[in-house]
Amino acid sequence: MNEFDFISKYFSPLSDKTHGLNLLDDAAILPESKGKIVITKDIMTEGTHFLSGSNPKLLAQKLVSVNVSDLASMGASPLGYLLGLSLPKNTEEKWFEQFSLGIKQSIKSYGGILLGGDTTSHRYGTTLSLTAIGSVCNSNPIKRNSAKPDDIIFVSGTIGDGFLGLIIENNSNNLEMKEFDKRYLLDRYNNPKARSSLGVELCGIASSMCDVSDGLIGDLEHILKASRVGAELYLEEVPISQSAKIFIDKKIYNIQDLVTGGDDYELLFTVPKNKLKNIENLKKKLDLKITKIGKITENKDFFPTLNGNNISLNSKGYKHF
Amino acid sequence: MNEFDFISKYFSPLSDKTHGLNLLDDAAILPESKGKIVITKDIMTEGTHFLSGSNPKLLAQKLVSVNVSDLASMGASPLGYLLGLSLPKNTEEKWFEQFSLGIKQSIKSYGGILLGGDTTSHRYGTTLSLTAIGSVCNSNPIKRNSAKPDDIIFVSGTIGDGFLGLIIENNSNNLEMKEFDKRYLLDRYNNPKARSSLGVELCGIASSMCDVSDGLIGDLEHILKASRVGAELYLEEVPISQSAKIFIDKKIYNIQDLVTGGDDYELLFTVPKNKLKNIENLKKKLDLKITKIGKITENKDFFPTLNGNNISLNSKGYKHF
Repeated sequence: MNEFDFISKYFSPLSDKTHGLNLLDDAAILPESKGKIVITKDIMTEGTHFLSGSNPKLLAQKLVSVNVSDLASMGASPLGYLLGLSLPKNTEEKWFEQFSLGIKQSIKSYGGILLGGDTTSHRYGTTLSLTAIGSVCNSNPIKRNSAKPDDIIFVSGTIGDGFLGLIIENNSNNLEMKEFDKRYLLDRYNNPKARSSLGVELCGIASSMCDVSDGLIGDLEHILKASRVGAELYLEEVPISQSAKIFIDKKIYNIQDLVTGGDDYELLFTVPKNKLKNIENLKKKLDLKITKIGKITENKDFFPTLNGNNISLNSKGYKHF
Repeated sequence: MNEFDFISKYFSPLSDKTHGLNLLDDAAILPESKGKIVITKDIMTEGTHFLSGSNPKLLAQKLVSVNVSDLASMGASPLGYLLGLSLPKNTEEKWFEQFSLGIKQSIKSYGGILLGGDTTSHRYGTTLSLTAIGSVCNSNPIKRNSAKPDDIIFVSGTIGDGFLGLIIENNSNNLEMKEFDKRYLLDRYNNPKARSSLGVELCGIASSMCDVSDGLIGDLEHILKASRVGAELYLEEVPISQSAKIFIDKKIYNIQDLVTGGDDYELLFTVPKNKLKNIENLKKKLDLKITKIGKITENKDFFPTLNGNNISLNSKGYKHF
């Protein structure tokens, strides 16, 4: 059993189904808020999410971005944040200075205010956690459980850059590559940007949504399971960056690796056919790549295909345990 | 510089003063909630807040209680919770079972629902964090910055039990004592109860409030500093339990030690003279010990006295760093 199994077995029964999350959506809907306030919490731990000695400013920015990404995937924009720091004793002032600078810049970029938090010491290593609270303005939050047959599946940006950035970060790849590509992929991993504007714009358009944090395949499966539907997914349509394409062309990794790697923080969403025109308008308005990669089926099977051939995937999403 | 200094220097400038917290209140007031929703986040780390191998059910109950205590100190009752777990790889199912049982029982006792959270692995040890969201019904949240000269200072329950429970837990005391006293003090440390009902009842009565987590002296100083007032504190009036009295009588610890130890989770609050009658009524209604221990002064000095004599205190509240 893994993280998801234990959470499902022991914590799901404690949650309240009337708030419609089953601990499955990226963010929860706050009771007594008329469904307009959503809240999320993400943790980053040393040794699992980042290496010892990582740049504190980048860590802070990523911490804010991954939480804002959860809000964005519900169609919400940030109202405020609570910060939880568990730090080694004798953490240097320089660390606080750089970390707070990262928090400041990210909050300025995404909106919302720092509301409070807690700081404690840890004997063994650093754990960073953030709670982000957001509001949905003109519609209900977008959930995972409302994809319908024949809806079209879209994804923003490009997929797999986070996975490759992590490979480069860990120095487990000795590929000769241009400095530009290396920097681009590292930046995508270390300093992802939440698709906050897109998420908010998709209110009233997307029928279901989540962000791509566990891997495109794993996250799509979350939508399919919650919505009790299946999907056709065309792997040849999955958007990849020029930098990622180098790895494919040299056959170091294949598209299956990229769609099962995590850390992309793009938005994965479904759109009913009568709202496809809105997506075209949004692409132009936000000057953002939004790509059709499949469609929802009534049949609950999930068929990823590559150029028409069925593809079996061993790993389906990143597991922490 | 310590935790408070770093937070003050680097994070306070990022917070929004219109929400009146300056990162100083126990909980923050959520924007766009008309001042009715408060939110807090507390962390417990292995090696700092608890020993390796601690009973997971008790850890869960304490985690909920310390957060509900923060809500209570604002006069709020719980609406919901987000849980953040950073756990060693290969955490056994038994741990999840017992931990979730503790969460379940505490939530049932205090109210509110589990909204969601995040679980990650940690290479080095366990960090538990909880975000609790609460609502204030018939008045505004009770803050720290609104104590006024001549207000009377009260504290609920007894002070110093948490400090002594920790001493016993760490086996650093070989005092011969009755099993009853030992169990009582250990229970007060390991399984504190938040004064949730009292907190809610004090809305419209208390002029300022906080919970006693850093130590009575340190927490009173937070109120004094935020309210820009001083206080007289009569240490001989500070309520201590029969079990704690054994340590005083045997001169193993003195009252100064008890008022500077942390982890009591009692409520410390100030009441204007024209509302003292309400406190008498509350004592009876809740069948709870509520003790007058001092008064607020316009003069910003802070004079703790013991039987009329000035007492100097070396340690003023527990510091994590």
